[in-house]
Amino acid sequence: AAAPRTVRMGSLKVRAESEASTTPAVVLNPSIKKDVDKVVDTVLVSDLSKPLTAYCRCWRSGTFPLCDGSHAKHNKATGDNVGPLLVKK
Amino acid sequence: AAAPRTVRMGSLKVRAESEASTTPAVVLNPSIKKDVDKVVDTVLVSDLSKPLTAYCRCWRSGTFPLCDGSHAKHNKATGDNVGPLLVKK
Ligand code: FES
Ligand code: FES
Repeated sequence: AAAPRTVRMGSLKVRAESEASTTPAVVLNPSIKKDVDKVVDTVLVSDLSKPLTAYCRCWRSGTFPLCDGSHAKHNKATGDNVGPLLVKK
Repeated sequence: AAAPRTVRMGSLKVRAESEASTTPAVVLNPSIKKDVDKVVDTVLVSDLSKPLTAYCRCWRSGTFPLCDGSHAKHNKATGDNVGPLLVKK
């Protein structure tokens, strides 16, 4: 009985160390749709009205899922380098 | 001369408090293209090969700007609720 228990604890420890070194444990989205498990948005290309539409990837936009330029304030405040995804017709 | 200086300091203090309360000072992107000031990607809809393509908004994908499902690990580790942008033809 001792062997399986030791193996399982080792496996969990390795997994925790890997997450800490590769993915900082920070919440990316502090405020958008926090009542849903996962925020997924869909763009139907036939509904695009403009030649170019910018979609937010910083989770700071007041018009999410669209980009409203808020990434600039976030980048300046934190030294980050995030920006939108542009969808071009 | 004293009045303008006091006003300016007050204004700066208010701005700093507002940023702290609305936008946690966390880096969203720890590793993608950190040599560029702002990571912006462009999707040309005429180049889309599949009916549905998922684009990453968690900055943890190994196939960025595409989503590879890494948001699930991030959400589980942090309690976050981020997910991709789906572009549908
Ligand atoms: S406002 Fe979020 S990427 Fe522009
Ligand atoms: S891997 Fe980043 S949103 Fe899916």
